[in-house]
Amino acid sequence: MPLMTSWVASANAPGHPFPLNNLPCGVFSVGDDDPRCGVAIGDMILDCRAAEDEGLLNLDDAPVFDVPFWNEVMELGPEAWAALRARLIQLLKDGSAERAAVEPLLVPMDQAEMNLPFLVAEYTDFYAGRHHATNVGTMFRGAENALPPNWLHMPIGYNGRASSVVVSGTPVRRPWGQLKGPDDAAPRFAPCARFDLELEMGAVVGTGSEGPVTVDEADAMIFGYVLLNDWSARDIQAWEYQPLGPFQAKATATTISPWIVTRAALAPFRVSTPAREVPLLDHLKDTGPMLYDIDLTVTLAPEGKPATEIARTNYREMYYSAAQQLAHHTTSGCPMTPGDLLGSGTISGPEKHQRGSLLELSWGGKEPLTLDTGETRSFLADGDTLTLQGAAHGDGYTIGFGTCTGTILPALKDPYAR
Amino acid sequence: MPLMTSWVASANAPGHPFPLNNLPCGVFSVGDDDPRCGVAIGDMILDCRAAEDEGLLNLDDAPVFDVPFWNEVMELGPEAWAALRARLIQLLKDGSAERAAVEPLLVPMDQAEMNLPFLVAEYTDFYAGRHHATNVGTMFRGAENALPPNWLHMPIGYNGRASSVVVSGTPVRRPWGQLKGPDDAAPRFAPCARFDLELEMGAVVGTGSEGPVTVDEADAMIFGYVLLNDWSARDIQAWEYQPLGPFQAKATATTISPWIVTRAALAPFRVSTPAREVPLLDHLKDTGPMLYDIDLTVTLAPEGKPATEIARTNYREMYYSAAQQLAHHTTSGCPMTPGDLLGSGTISGPEKHQRGSLLELSWGGKEPLTLDTGETRSFLADGDTLTLQGAAHGDGYTIGFGTCTGTILPALKDPYAR
Repeated sequence: MPLMTSWVASANAPGHPFPLNNLPCGVFSVGDDDPRCGVAIGDMILDCRAAEDEGLLNLDDAPVFDVPFWNEVMELGPEAWAALRARLIQLLKDGSAERAAVEPLLVPMDQAEMNLPFLVAEYTDFYAGRHHATNVGTMFRGAENALPPNWLHMPIGYNGRASSVVVSGTPVRRPWGQLKGPDDAAPRFAPCARFDLELEMGAVVGTGSEGPVTVDEADAMIFGYVLLNDWSARDIQAWEYQPLGPFQAKATATTISPWIVTRAALAPFRVSTPAREVPLLDHLKDTGPMLYDIDLTVTLAPEGKPATEIARTNYREMYYSAAQQLAHHTTSGCPMTPGDLLGSGTISGPEKHQRGSLLELSWGGKEPLTLDTGETRSFLADGDTLTLQGAAHGDGYTIGFGTCTGTILPALKDPYAR
Repeated sequence: MPLMTSWVASANAPGHPFPLNNLPCGVFSVGDDDPRCGVAIGDMILDCRAAEDEGLLNLDDAPVFDVPFWNEVMELGPEAWAALRARLIQLLKDGSAERAAVEPLLVPMDQAEMNLPFLVAEYTDFYAGRHHATNVGTMFRGAENALPPNWLHMPIGYNGRASSVVVSGTPVRRPWGQLKGPDDAAPRFAPCARFDLELEMGAVVGTGSEGPVTVDEADAMIFGYVLLNDWSARDIQAWEYQPLGPFQAKATATTISPWIVTRAALAPFRVSTPAREVPLLDHLKDTGPMLYDIDLTVTLAPEGKPATEIARTNYREMYYSAAQQLAHHTTSGCPMTPGDLLGSGTISGPEKHQRGSLLELSWGGKEPLTLDTGETRSFLADGDTLTLQGAAHGDGYTIGFGTCTGTILPALKDPYAR
């Protein structure tokens, strides 16, 4: 599919992240106005609430854009999502008969503040990147036992904390936690000294389910994708995670990009999962290409200094697709809810520069990374700004995600001072 | 504190679970009426929505009982909770001047169907019973390594799945899952063969928080307590839980009792946690008695047959209070939300009959339990009805929780048949 041209001229610029092919879904506010749903087109945002009020968008008998989140649209299901996309293309394409009615409803993106695009019902994080799991496993258990025995048979995941999900741009406060190094006689309560990022994609579950769903059904339930940074306190995690998994290490914040890029926009970029070393059980088998060819980068900018690219990889490196993760998630009958967010797990490629966390990039702190500024990093320093970016490159156009960024604030001096 | 007498005569009967001292909060419906908030008093339920409509309850400028869940009351905070309790006592006490206005708003409990009493924001389950952790640890890692190294230093917990929480009486379908026994060459997808209960208390978080909170602040955030059965698929858990903890093993269902017994009603029953083997770090230290003396029982009734009591223990057996769990939950800055539910962890006492799961009662299946009917159980059979009950015994009165019950339905023949 080539570039679809829009009468919003900026959307047609080569390499622009938000051409008519994209139409990602966000929630924005301008000045003191209430936040509202919008769709990105070039350098502008189409105000969906206004478009609904004006009768230009009619998805359902009742309004769906009278709330500042996309959950109500998501609950309408895939047919409504397709109808919305078709209607938006009709309104925004070059030569649209309705340009005059739509043009007043566009807001310059640089005047808008972005909010969380949806109410996060529950958040699940997976561990589905083979290179990441192998790297971490090698560091912690040795190369012979790098992958846990279950890893090649199902996407390993754990429930995260939905309340910790924040939108790109929200500062992230370095957490306190209970820590005990291998040489410490006793644990202590102190600020995290090994604070890290994790480069992930997030799949946004659009429709709910009651019982087990197939991989195909799971794929159809996914509304779209965001970039996701699963901030991780490695020293808290090391002490707490046996036997029940990560808890406070992952609860400080999880940052997502402000635009949900829909499954429809990503359809041309579908790719297959890697070859299977052992066959998956039937209920998890691949039924078609369900990963996506999305280039991903991470930059780190020390406070007041230029950014260095510290990682460059691709979502296609994952071993399991979000559809397989969601199918596995429902095997026990676990009910899924519109607005559930599934983190892919850290996305690392086979090469050193393709690793999606500082834990891997600095090999547990043993090989500090040298930034372009000359500084080194084993883990994150106060004031560091981390930025994830993602783009799928089509035939003469790009599908962008916007940025997923966060700056590290120093730990509170006394977390219990009131 | 002695029995407070009510003009609702049944509430004054010796041993009645719902005297005026209790006033637990539920959500009920009668016939086709919409569900609404109510408070149990003797054999009756006071319809709080009707009481608010009639001007008898005025908690806030805006109505708080126009929704079928207690979250809006919870969000008002401890002063409003105290005001509500005082007002309810005024309305329902013996000799109340307002009896004539209140009496028409009472609904017989035996005509009411109970719903979930609150919207579960997120669900966290802990592992804070020392006898349980020691029993399970001994089975899986040997007596020498029974308690993980972190266990005596902090309440170990993991995030559960809020969407799986159901109210007492909801049937529970035996799940499918990926299983691999120690002697199996490869995993298979099959119905769970080791389905279990876990006897727990649930703490209902009433007010939210942004940063770390102290144990005292945490205690004040708790609105009340429910009985909780954390249904557990032991065979799914054994294969999936390394390295990130339980996931599908705990996602089928979690049953709670229909009445939230408030912290105020339980105040006379506060007891201290057990002596500490190693001192806790300051931020988790006990600052007063924050466990409760609540007798707990579990019965198992095979389909169509009488019930056998299989366990009898007490909430005071826990090593960590819910306040300590909640304080730990916030250490990393994890935001808490009104409606968060914290499972205590399985409550087992030191004696065999005091164990709160079949895993422990049958010692991993090696010592099947003989029921009064002559049947044996290592794990749950289809058709079994499990019932948890709880009561705090005061000076001439009882604070009851109602029952927390669920019947096991057979696994689906083909979970993907459509």
